[in-house]
Amino acid sequence: MQTPWEYRFAHRAQSMKSSVIRELLKLTEQPDIISFAGGLPAPEVFPLKEFEEACERVLTLHGATALQYGATDGYLPLREMIARHTERYKLSATPANILITSGSQQALDFIGRLFINRGDRILVESPTYLGALQAWNAYGAQYVAVPVDEHGMIVEELEKALRAGPKFIYVLPNFQNPYGATLSLERRQMLVKLADQYGVPIVEDDPYGQLRYSGEHLPSVAYLDAQYRENGDHEYTGNVIYLSTFSKLLAPGLRLAWVVAPPNVIQKMVMAKQAADLHTSSFNQMAAYEVGKGGFIDEHVKAIRSVYKERRDVMLEMMDEFFPEEMRWTKPEGGMFLWGMMPEGADAAKVLESAIQRKVAFVPGTAFHPDGGGANTMRLNFSYSSPELIREGIARLGATLKEALVKNG
Amino acid sequence: MQTPWEYRFAHRAQSMKSSVIRELLKLTEQPDIISFAGGLPAPEVFPLKEFEEACERVLTLHGATALQYGATDGYLPLREMIARHTERYKLSATPANILITSGSQQALDFIGRLFINRGDRILVESPTYLGALQAWNAYGAQYVAVPVDEHGMIVEELEKALRAGPKFIYVLPNFQNPYGATLSLERRQMLVKLADQYGVPIVEDDPYGQLRYSGEHLPSVAYLDAQYRENGDHEYTGNVIYLSTFSKLLAPGLRLAWVVAPPNVIQKMVMAKQAADLHTSSFNQMAAYEVGKGGFIDEHVKAIRSVYKERRDVMLEMMDEFFPEEMRWTKPEGGMFLWGMMPEGADAAKVLESAIQRKVAFVPGTAFHPDGGGANTMRLNFSYSSPELIREGIARLGATLKEALVKNG
Repeated sequence: MQTPWEYRFAHRAQSMKSSVIRELLKLTEQPDIISFAGGLPAPEVFPLKEFEEACERVLTLHGATALQYGATDGYLPLREMIARHTERYKLSATPANILITSGSQQALDFIGRLFINRGDRILVESPTYLGALQAWNAYGAQYVAVPVDEHGMIVEELEKALRAGPKFIYVLPNFQNPYGATLSLERRQMLVKLADQYGVPIVEDDPYGQLRYSGEHLPSVAYLDAQYRENGDHEYTGNVIYLSTFSKLLAPGLRLAWVVAPPNVIQKMVMAKQAADLHTSSFNQMAAYEVGKGGFIDEHVKAIRSVYKERRDVMLEMMDEFFPEEMRWTKPEGGMFLWGMMPEGADAAKVLESAIQRKVAFVPGTAFHPDGGGANTMRLNFSYSSPELIREGIARLGATLKEALVKNG
Repeated sequence: MQTPWEYRFAHRAQSMKSSVIRELLKLTEQPDIISFAGGLPAPEVFPLKEFEEACERVLTLHGATALQYGATDGYLPLREMIARHTERYKLSATPANILITSGSQQALDFIGRLFINRGDRILVESPTYLGALQAWNAYGAQYVAVPVDEHGMIVEELEKALRAGPKFIYVLPNFQNPYGATLSLERRQMLVKLADQYGVPIVEDDPYGQLRYSGEHLPSVAYLDAQYRENGDHEYTGNVIYLSTFSKLLAPGLRLAWVVAPPNVIQKMVMAKQAADLHTSSFNQMAAYEVGKGGFIDEHVKAIRSVYKERRDVMLEMMDEFFPEEMRWTKPEGGMFLWGMMPEGADAAKVLESAIQRKVAFVPGTAFHPDGGGANTMRLNFSYSSPELIREGIARLGATLKEALVKNG
């Protein structure tokens, strides 16, 4: 008799769903569609030559060690390099503060493993990063949502949400995916203070921090936390778990990211990683170290910034020219995404259907809202398409929107 | 105030422990210790030249695509290559049956995610693979243990254990880690039949299947299951989830393994993987495909077999010569480990202390027993050390054992 697998699955698996976005992306992957739906970095900016040379060097320098099992916490020289990088952004950290993960998605999963009991509330921005919701839904998380505006999470609403007793606060302070907002310095300081006052830890997700195209760099929430609690030691022992990644600095296909956190949190994460996948590829970690050790990444990030800045500027210009008057959108100072808002009552999912007919695509905003809502909103990616395609795609989308909003009005 | 992280951790994290073996390995990593404690493949057999050439080819053929985000289920040509490999071992499979994971440890974790509710019983061999216990403890698994002998799981004891209502059966049929036993054909057939009769799925973990040094290849449990249920279709839809890995065929540092399972199980696992780490490194998958596509792995496995066969033979010869009469041990037909049994009442943990003084190490057997016991047993690895070191190490261990067992007697 055929095995009825559906009756064998655990509770958590019965509620597992494929990401709405991943399913949608399949629709938009027809080659003639200009897609602003995905979240891919531009492959033109991947440092192919440097990576190829790094591969050779790794095999020459380390031979078989590069292909052998490695330490669960990560390749030490890479963790030291990250600690130096972190120090340059003023946050003191030692390798004991750092874990290498197989992409930031894995770090989000480990945070779920470590902290979330079924029914625990997580304080998130609304809208927020979909991958985090997906990781934490598997652990039975519930959410308390705090809305965002152009300066990020509205901290005036934070205090009420903190009184719901969340397990931790999840915040993307820089060029937030999906909204594109940056948390102001004042709000960062208020966030650190309130989190300390209520005794609630902060998870700071910062994949895009270095991809700033205008405005001034702002200190990380982790640094402000260290400063607030006068954590002047070399080792960070504060209230923040900070995540970042090589996916946007080098290339996402290597699956390399890192966590900076107090050593006792890192130790627990190492145990989670032992059970989850033993360790991240030795070869990939060594290659990333070889690419980065001489300071190449700083130079390379400048090149990425100039490519993405042009794309953002072109998209914003074209939106000004082609989008109907009733539309509002964010003007991100960095990152890869901006957020479009149609008038209340408009339906982005329906607009997407017409848009696909015109061969252009975006992601409707509902999926990013843990508390529902946002039916009139959309996320647009500006990092992946060339300026020419952005011009053409925004013109098409503008025409679609004008038609839809006339109907709607 | 300092964040009291220990009060923030979820139930599952409070019980997380570092692997006993990993902790022990740190002790045995002093350079002058001959360690039979680890589970490493011999780095001498890693195909460095072929891998280096493959890296170059991947970057030439695929350029930036090798460094971009990839599909969650894995690189299609690699999945097709695995399907062909599986067919050669008579089990019909299509890419819809195959998921690429970041090492088999990740597959074990996903099986826990998909199937284990807190308190669910898993039927395991005793002793069994420690990494599986570690992965499933995180999901609150309990165990029903079936003892093994030289022909693997004692199926006469299986039926009683099946009446405990286990969620699934976990079996390592070939050269089991840690015991070294191989499940006989007759027992494989009985296992398939009983699992079907009781409606309980089987997880077949087969990292070493191709590393056979003597005796005849036996068909996989998955194949016998397909045959039993006359699953003659091209696609496998049976009762077995089969795991294997490139860690022992190519190199573990790449973190590449695969699952063969019915398509509806694979689909759920893909959802688990989306939340866990999005996908396995695109570059590594392409490189493994480039190394393997022309049939190189078959040739390479012959070379690995001849290296490991010699080491196994040397270890067994030396044990005959140097171990005290009261010792018993398994004589594995393949794989990387054998199992030593001192008389009842002897304490392997204590013997290890004396062994380390003589600069030789092994793993005491208790950790491999989900139901306790095995204090008089030990696991010895024969794949990592050179024949010279094996000679010297077994002589030292023999002296240690003779001394300990005299004391003990």
